[in-house]
Amino acid sequence: MKKLNVAVVGATGAVGQEILKVLAEREFPINGLKLLASQRSAGKEIQYQGKSYIVEETTHESFQGVDIALFAGGSASKEFARSAAKAGCVVIDNSSAFRLEPDVPLVVPEVNPEDVKWHKGIIANPNCSTIQMVVALNPLHQAAKIKRVVVSTYQAVSGAGIEAIEELTKQTQAVLAGEEYPPQVFPYPIAFNLIPHIDVFEDMDYTKEEWKMVRETKKILHDDNIAVTATTVRVPVYRSHSESINIETERKLTAAEAREILRNSPGIIVVDNVQEKQYPMPLFTSNRDEVFVGRIREDNSLANGLNLWVVADQLRKGAATNAVQIAELLVKYNCI
Amino acid sequence: MKKLNVAVVGATGAVGQEILKVLAEREFPINGLKLLASQRSAGKEIQYQGKSYIVEETTHESFQGVDIALFAGGSASKEFARSAAKAGCVVIDNSSAFRLEPDVPLVVPEVNPEDVKWHKGIIANPNCSTIQMVVALNPLHQAAKIKRVVVSTYQAVSGAGIEAIEELTKQTQAVLAGEEYPPQVFPYPIAFNLIPHIDVFEDMDYTKEEWKMVRETKKILHDDNIAVTATTVRVPVYRSHSESINIETERKLTAAEAREILRNSPGIIVVDNVQEKQYPMPLFTSNRDEVFVGRIREDNSLANGLNLWVVADQLRKGAATNAVQIAELLVKYNCI
Repeated sequence: MKKLNVAVVGATGAVGQEILKVLAEREFPINGLKLLASQRSAGKEIQYQGKSYIVEETTHESFQGVDIALFAGGSASKEFARSAAKAGCVVIDNSSAFRLEPDVPLVVPEVNPEDVKWHKGIIANPNCSTIQMVVALNPLHQAAKIKRVVVSTYQAVSGAGIEAIEELTKQTQAVLAGEEYPPQVFPYPIAFNLIPHIDVFEDMDYTKEEWKMVRETKKILHDDNIAVTATTVRVPVYRSHSESINIETERKLTAAEAREILRNSPGIIVVDNVQEKQYPMPLFTSNRDEVFVGRIREDNSLANGLNLWVVADQLRKGAATNAVQIAELLVKYNCI
Repeated sequence: MKKLNVAVVGATGAVGQEILKVLAEREFPINGLKLLASQRSAGKEIQYQGKSYIVEETTHESFQGVDIALFAGGSASKEFARSAAKAGCVVIDNSSAFRLEPDVPLVVPEVNPEDVKWHKGIIANPNCSTIQMVVALNPLHQAAKIKRVVVSTYQAVSGAGIEAIEELTKQTQAVLAGEEYPPQVFPYPIAFNLIPHIDVFEDMDYTKEEWKMVRETKKILHDDNIAVTATTVRVPVYRSHSESINIETERKLTAAEAREILRNSPGIIVVDNVQEKQYPMPLFTSNRDEVFVGRIREDNSLANGLNLWVVADQLRKGAATNAVQIAELLVKYNCI
């Protein structure tokens, strides 16, 4: 197999670290590895498969000779992704900067793998909450056509980076000790609290995170008619986002049919035996690559309704794993 | 004002303790106070307004001469509520045992106060998640007729009693120390986790908690046509339940109209200024009697849709405060 020169941009962050883990686990065919980050993190040493790498500062010249650049997200994408693509490398970008651009495929490998083929140098990795939702929805959409989705999220702190993980720990310790720990990453304390506010507020008082779930879902499923409304909430959980999803379909699906369809779909593990108290929970889905679906119930409040509970590790399937899967598709389809 | 002989059944539990606090705060006109509990708790000493009371074991003879018996919930209701009513006292019952009985009014004072008038000895206090939802929904239902409700809950541990509060604390401490703390109250660890399972599983794989939200809502709103579907989830929060509620109305309501209607409705505080990062959160609604509503948004995934985020202290408005308000109605309407 052809070995590739790979760069990871933002290699020291929560997603960057996860990308390195996933590249190693999946034995991605790497020739040369370049670890890039902001000036602040340049010079740090990172191990990859027993070899030591020094993190370099990202510049417009960093991408010469690189085949695939995996951008972990953040402001580096806007600054460097276009020039990286111009330098001839294919960018797989985890930020929201390019996701809705018409010349950028937005890809979830279980859902729309073929979209990688028409890339023009940048392929976008969708929002973490959107990825796990569409993995679960797509098989049902193919089977019964989804008309409308109402989703409420329960999102883990690690979606906000390494500092957010530390904030939850330190703030929780402080609360238990009867002390104060003022929030720094989040707008309010997250320990033993919920914050119905992720990313910035935009049109109609929805957050950007909520709009991502609406707009990215349409683009990934190639269906502008699928109606989505979302409420996104941060919860005091370290890892794995959970989603309560209500769908209305064109054709009736029983819970048993939905379960069967999902069981036979890629990237999904159905955990749904309530008599045995089996349902997905963040504690047991973390560090896993699959999307876990349970609490599958017919919703009799309308003719063709279903409720689902969907949990996945948002640093893995919601970010790193999905990005590396896209890189694998580039190799598989020979479009790099 | 006529002073009444009041009994609190389950006086040593989380809800019982809260009932005593609320009775004192609202200066309920008490003549004699009787604190009842199971044999296990009998003999304990409890202070009420500077006076010491010995908890007595509940028996079928406990209710002679009692005007109002506030049952905190649990198995005592099924065992003693009917005989208490026969002894001539009015039972306000926080358990789920009688809520759907045709001869038992199910009352939320802001919504259906007049229903107390036809009691036959027992008045039921609705489920905590239902109470805060109907307080928020009723004004919108009156204004625009709600056709369908999709609700996902984020429920605090104190809904499961004092032991659950301790379990969250001890388990969280253990996790932070890298130790194990096996769950006792909850089916799985709740520290830094979510459990999509509250109360037992029933028909169609919904939990009893979920069915309560469906059925009690119809009864309280006197509307069998209102369609409700619910997913209920336990979260690692001490106090105050949160709910992401999506509604479809017959008549269009703008977000501004909904906000105005809710602002002018009893028992509600609208906290909804996203530009100033103002929205309800459990941390700031605990120990309050009102229902807090925010994140009010038009839902364009259908013609007449709205999203709401509703938070309330489920031990106060969801249980104790609502029960004491019912007792106040009995006095006000002179039907005791």
